[in-house]
Amino acid sequence: MYIHAVSHYFPSEVVGNEHFTRLNGLSSEWITERTGIRERRKAAPDENTNTMALEAVRRLFDQTAIDPSQIDLIVGATYTPYDTIVTLAHVVQHNLGVPDIPVISVSTACSSLINAVEVVEGYFAMNKATLAVVVVSEHNTAYNNETDTVSGHLWGDGAAALLISKERISDEDMTIHTIITGGAATSGKATTGVMLKPLEQGVLMPHGRDVFINACLYMPKVSLQVLEKHNLTIDDVDYLIPHQANLRISLNVINTLKLPETKLLSNIQKLGNTGCAGCAIALSENRALFKKGQNIVLTVFGGGYSFGAMLVEV
Amino acid sequence: MYIHAVSHYFPSEVVGNEHFTRLNGLSSEWITERTGIRERRKAAPDENTNTMALEAVRRLFDQTAIDPSQIDLIVGATYTPYDTIVTLAHVVQHNLGVPDIPVISVSTACSSLINAVEVVEGYFAMNKATLAVVVVSEHNTAYNNETDTVSGHLWGDGAAALLISKERISDEDMTIHTIITGGAATSGKATTGVMLKPLEQGVLMPHGRDVFINACLYMPKVSLQVLEKHNLTIDDVDYLIPHQANLRISLNVINTLKLPETKLLSNIQKLGNTGCAGCAIALSENRALFKKGQNIVLTVFGGGYSFGAMLVEV
Repeated sequence: MYIHAVSHYFPSEVVGNEHFTRLNGLSSEWITERTGIRERRKAAPDENTNTMALEAVRRLFDQTAIDPSQIDLIVGATYTPYDTIVTLAHVVQHNLGVPDIPVISVSTACSSLINAVEVVEGYFAMNKATLAVVVVSEHNTAYNNETDTVSGHLWGDGAAALLISKERISDEDMTIHTIITGGAATSGKATTGVMLKPLEQGVLMPHGRDVFINACLYMPKVSLQVLEKHNLTIDDVDYLIPHQANLRISLNVINTLKLPETKLLSNIQKLGNTGCAGCAIALSENRALFKKGQNIVLTVFGGGYSFGAMLVEV
Repeated sequence: MYIHAVSHYFPSEVVGNEHFTRLNGLSSEWITERTGIRERRKAAPDENTNTMALEAVRRLFDQTAIDPSQIDLIVGATYTPYDTIVTLAHVVQHNLGVPDIPVISVSTACSSLINAVEVVEGYFAMNKATLAVVVVSEHNTAYNNETDTVSGHLWGDGAAALLISKERISDEDMTIHTIITGGAATSGKATTGVMLKPLEQGVLMPHGRDVFINACLYMPKVSLQVLEKHNLTIDDVDYLIPHQANLRISLNVINTLKLPETKLLSNIQKLGNTGCAGCAIALSENRALFKKGQNIVLTVFGGGYSFGAMLVEV
């Protein structure tokens, strides 16, 4: 399967660390030192998970001659839903105007991008689809409790979209070689590490250290597994895009893998944790950087817990 | 693929129509005449989407000699999440104690049961799984605004679980022959017909008539499609289990299909609309009724909109 196009969107409002200094007394240096985050984006009052998804998909079709009518599958992903019934996948179908194709939204927290692509892989394997839109969107600031001094400063908003085809469409397509996903709900403090109960306030992370430990364990492990499955080693990797949760986690992951820092792609510094959209935004932002034949590993870890990795050849 | 076991759970508290008479002045006769609903179940204060899912899965494994350690995939579904990060699928993994298998939760509103089973079909097709738990759970009363005179009286709570295998495990297994799902977000008032915005109050159904019309259109249509795909006709159907949204919709569906009322299985009278769990609860409740060789069509329609059908041979 192939990534024919990738796009992203983040809102225009920038929220710097000083916002949390004013609110909670956390210094910008303290936040940056512990998380890498200098600023994050915040959706406007008239924006939400669904509108950001629509904007990402609009930009996706700006990049291709493919007509939306050719799409035969839409998979959305978010843990910060605007509407759990009229999901982001459904509004995308509505706007693209393609009737009666499979449309589904998924949630496996911050790891959902890879899970969504694996669902597409399944539809391709069943011969029930050949050309899919995957759209990931997070409106963290809608659920976040900014006054939470533990994790209120971590979250940002953003969205991304991928056009994924079963057969190669153009020479520029990136090849998805291997996908592995897994739940890790039996590990550590999985069921209380990070929580978002929509009827209570906030995205809570009472056990940040446990999340850190498990993210640093699972992302290197599954990265090596996707490489091994395709008979590659870590030396064959040109870029690693980990889930954008915390720069210290990302650095820990590449250290474990013995990758140089130059191979790490990060946007957490300017976007914060954009949930399941973070990796896809990074893939989109850096598209021009990638050269034919290069290998990129995307790897994710989410609350709950869950993990995944995807090997992409440019 | 096969349904090796199916189970259900609903809470013990019964809420009769008189509750809404006291609250909103709606007479019990008026509610029953328009919806078929006489009573519905309400989760206890210490219950939620995740606890009901766990109870349904506990009952699932009471029915089989299969050990949970053999499970290699868990798919959850709900539009009334207790936690969008620690999803129902993740707590099920946690409780079953099976590490590192794919775990995913989906939402396509009231049609999610069939979507979840189709995701399993995809994992089977990829050879990434052979034995899956599908768990559907809705805690409608957590989100419902009871004082809403339009739809406050419709909703009930409940959960169900299915153990689905790629290969036949026992002679008692039911065979899943054909699954079709589709988004219908381009039809009617799809994006405003039914909504659940977690940060606003209530499951809203401002366009009940449009939902009614499209449910009555799509469920018969997709039921005939799954039959046709398996070279059967409506005369081969022994039971139809439609999404349990409204008894008048169910009766309209069987009238369109020219099926006798004796072939309709309903639980809405005593459970109300239990969302994506309704059909699966009905399958579980009526398991002893089914005889070898009988054909059952499950068909669903959800807000957003979305639809699906599944042909099951006993």
